[in-house]
Amino acid sequence: MDSKTIGILGGGQLGRMIVEAASRLNIKTVVLDAPNSPAKQINAGEHVDGSFNNVDDIARLAKKCDVLTVEIEHVDADALELVRKSMNVEIYPLPETIKLIKDKYLQKEHLISHGIKVADLVAVSENSESALAEIGAKFGYPFMLKSRTDAYDGRGNFVVKSPEFHAEALEFLSNRPLYAEKWCRFAKELAVMVVRTIDGEVHAYPTVETVHKDNICHVVYAPARVLDTVRSHAQILANSAVKTFPGCGIFGVEMFLLPDNELLVNEIAPRPHNSGHYTIDACVTSQFEAHVRAVVGLPMPRNVTSFSTTNTAAIMVNVLGDDVPNKELEACSRALETPHASVYLYGKTTRPKRKLGHINIVTSSMADAEERLRYIMEGRAPILSIQEAKEAPLVGVIMGSDSDLKAMSVGADILKKFGVPFELTIVSAHRTPHRMIEYATKAAERGIKVIIAGAGGAAHLPGMVAALTPLPVIGVPIKGSTLDGVDSLHSIVQMPRGIPVATVAINNSTNAALLAVRILGAADPKWLTEMTNYMNSMEEEVLAKVERLETTGYDKY
Amino acid sequence: MDSKTIGILGGGQLGRMIVEAASRLNIKTVVLDAPNSPAKQINAGEHVDGSFNNVDDIARLAKKCDVLTVEIEHVDADALELVRKSMNVEIYPLPETIKLIKDKYLQKEHLISHGIKVADLVAVSENSESALAEIGAKFGYPFMLKSRTDAYDGRGNFVVKSPEFHAEALEFLSNRPLYAEKWCRFAKELAVMVVRTIDGEVHAYPTVETVHKDNICHVVYAPARVLDTVRSHAQILANSAVKTFPGCGIFGVEMFLLPDNELLVNEIAPRPHNSGHYTIDACVTSQFEAHVRAVVGLPMPRNVTSFSTTNTAAIMVNVLGDDVPNKELEACSRALETPHASVYLYGKTTRPKRKLGHINIVTSSMADAEERLRYIMEGRAPILSIQEAKEAPLVGVIMGSDSDLKAMSVGADILKKFGVPFELTIVSAHRTPHRMIEYATKAAERGIKVIIAGAGGAAHLPGMVAALTPLPVIGVPIKGSTLDGVDSLHSIVQMPRGIPVATVAINNSTNAALLAVRILGAADPKWLTEMTNYMNSMEEEVLAKVERLETTGYDKY
Repeated sequence: MDSKTIGILGGGQLGRMIVEAASRLNIKTVVLDAPNSPAKQINAGEHVDGSFNNVDDIARLAKKCDVLTVEIEHVDADALELVRKSMNVEIYPLPETIKLIKDKYLQKEHLISHGIKVADLVAVSENSESALAEIGAKFGYPFMLKSRTDAYDGRGNFVVKSPEFHAEALEFLSNRPLYAEKWCRFAKELAVMVVRTIDGEVHAYPTVETVHKDNICHVVYAPARVLDTVRSHAQILANSAVKTFPGCGIFGVEMFLLPDNELLVNEIAPRPHNSGHYTIDACVTSQFEAHVRAVVGLPMPRNVTSFSTTNTAAIMVNVLGDDVPNKELEACSRALETPHASVYLYGKTTRPKRKLGHINIVTSSMADAEERLRYIMEGRAPILSIQEAKEAPLVGVIMGSDSDLKAMSVGADILKKFGVPFELTIVSAHRTPHRMIEYATKAAERGIKVIIAGAGGAAHLPGMVAALTPLPVIGVPIKGSTLDGVDSLHSIVQMPRGIPVATVAINNSTNAALLAVRILGAADPKWLTEMTNYMNSMEEEVLAKVERLETTGYDKY
Repeated sequence: MDSKTIGILGGGQLGRMIVEAASRLNIKTVVLDAPNSPAKQINAGEHVDGSFNNVDDIARLAKKCDVLTVEIEHVDADALELVRKSMNVEIYPLPETIKLIKDKYLQKEHLISHGIKVADLVAVSENSESALAEIGAKFGYPFMLKSRTDAYDGRGNFVVKSPEFHAEALEFLSNRPLYAEKWCRFAKELAVMVVRTIDGEVHAYPTVETVHKDNICHVVYAPARVLDTVRSHAQILANSAVKTFPGCGIFGVEMFLLPDNELLVNEIAPRPHNSGHYTIDACVTSQFEAHVRAVVGLPMPRNVTSFSTTNTAAIMVNVLGDDVPNKELEACSRALETPHASVYLYGKTTRPKRKLGHINIVTSSMADAEERLRYIMEGRAPILSIQEAKEAPLVGVIMGSDSDLKAMSVGADILKKFGVPFELTIVSAHRTPHRMIEYATKAAERGIKVIIAGAGGAAHLPGMVAALTPLPVIGVPIKGSTLDGVDSLHSIVQMPRGIPVATVAINNSTNAALLAVRILGAADPKWLTEMTNYMNSMEEEVLAKVERLETTGYDKY
């Protein structure tokens, strides 16, 4: 696609997935790392055997390439700077960005200077117990002692629970430049991938929730299971943070969500990130292709970073080496048995806790994705239960009293006939007002798409429920002993401006059910096909009667 | 994932995409073809340089592998059979299947013997004008003269328009074994990919429509733009055809759709197929991964072959070498600018009409996908027009007369406020009955999700429209000069069992519009969020009035 050749410092799984994305676009890649590293395995072109911390090796790589990029920030940034100055090669992310980011203390100072909120922190002036005691006095206990450099997957962090742990902490992190962070009681960890083009445009991917296990990113939920306002806020924050780094490429922004919904940036990676692997299957363009496009300057339309569909729910889980070699492949096998799951293995030999691959699950509801995850990780419940389990109800049928059941059950039969998953219960506006409020306010988040409410007499139920939910509510006026149901018809249909109730004919729960099926057709055209078939068979039925009437004669009919 | 190594006969783009799918699962592949062929470029492992028609080369490949497969059927099937007998290697598709399929005449005789319908055909006993004259007498003109072997992308076909063309046809196809086919006046060409497991289970991918240009498959529409019953029929037919071939792997089944909706099998490819490239982005599992899983015996759940989402609309277009070298990359560039399009280039040097890559477009409506295709292929209309163009209407607002406009425009304003794409027009049940039928029957296929119909007096419009469409119809009773609108309310709401109209209060088009927004929420939760915000702001408005009333006092309010 583009005549530029990309050199990649680092040949692990991130490099491998960059190579794959580049190959699809027929963009050449050259990898600098040990022989037969994962990225080299999937590219028969030239590679450089060596270290991404050796200036000569980097220079050898640069000679073969037009652009250099990294899959890891722990590279020799000074060497990169030298190479950029002496050779005709672009480097993204910029060496100065890498230098800033790989020292976590400098990274955070940089963010603070640009008005980005991070946890309170302080540099450790000297690695001594007295210095730690000073920090303990300032931040209280526990506090976090962290290595400024070469720390990833939790290696380089120590929780200082009390003064008694000072010595152990210093020993654990001996001879490393350190900083300390105030303990952050976060509610969740969120992350956002951001791609930055050379023109400085930033595009945020969806906000995800990361769950760590033994300090290693383990499961990623996309989108994060938080309020949508929090998700937007996280994307805005991530964009602002990435805007502070000139150059281009993909960045992973990790954040803490505090209990009051405030967000702090935890740290930033100037490269593809484990929390963005879900993008391969869930987004219009993967983080890897976005990175390739950014560093070679290919077009990057605004919504490359969005989910492929409006209803995407994705889970990424890492395949970590088991203590029993290759036992981790059992989960991969189950993933292959699981529809909507994809398996990625990186060509690495197994070793306990090593990141050997990942599994993406992409469906349209998080509950469904979680059920698949449980099967894959724990083998719980055969996959059949996912495919054939009773589906969550799409229609809620409620009525004010069991005396309405006779009229309402006819509609329920219609739903059953169409195969629409539904629930049916009694909710009375006047006798169980609290239950009604509970039912109406929770219905949407339970996955209900339409509510059918039947009521007689004063018939407040449909209108009250409509006032408490954003879902469409269908009202069925039930005929009482007086007034022929006109009382409930008017009570249901004559709602004030602002709160609609879709009213059907008196006692006609059949039509309420058919209307519900038509409404579901907005989400899934199969219901429209079903409805068309139903209407055709109605037509045929009547036409059969026509024939019978005409052949029998009206007097004998 | 699996310790088996797959040997691939042929290193073109199909082999390349098999290699990619295998690499993701960390399954080793060895390719037999010329050095640096597309498939070899993306795999640093061992390969075999040689020909897939040379038995020694095939044996060298087999030595390195556990399973052999093909990316092309024009391989030496006898050599494969020999290798299978003498060496410890599985071969899928089975050599006998390849042998049967690569001779198109034998292939079709085989299908006929299994009750699968194909176009009328006859073997050409000898390549002479008199033999052709006999066929012309039997089939009439034009008829198709085809090479039994080594024919692909139309090379090997000749249309015999009249007896005058006999000599030219024989010259064009000289020295090849031939057969003739009765001319088939098809309406469309369809295709279905089918994966067969070693247990004989078959799983059909969606039915697609292929459009050829100069005999080369050019554009693929998935799903095919035909009745859904035709699509199902095509899948069943494809499954039946593939069931007749023992062994396992992926098969491409090409079909003719006749004007009477009958289907004939045109031909079968025992390998991944150009018409299945859309599966990479549009389906749960790509045709390439399905093939890999089949030949090494990995799990294959039932819905691996379905679309990833219920509303998928995909278009695949081949990137063919332009007469001006590399000019074809301009379309690729535009594809990169186009959200929901992905570019795949195969690492081949450019040459006129050569298949150099393909572009997949995956969205939720075919009209949208087609607009993106037009931009990519012709540069027509900047992409902005796709992103920001007025979207296709989701709601149709109709009324019986312009005198209803005053009441109905209030609802239109609400739709505008919510940003719902809608259309508004006059459709009268009594004065323009034909227009009403046209409007109602076409609305669903135009992408309309909800119809709002306002009517006064006898008010037949909402009910009649509901009787003619499977979509939800919202009825707004319009108050006339007498009876206060109760006439139209009863006329709209009291529909007979079978045809529902969602009736709102008299003259209350506001509630009709709000109900439409709630209904759209079934398809896209963003509308529910919008609705919740609207309801909250209504609540705040009233609460502000509460405060004003309480502080001002009711007498001064």
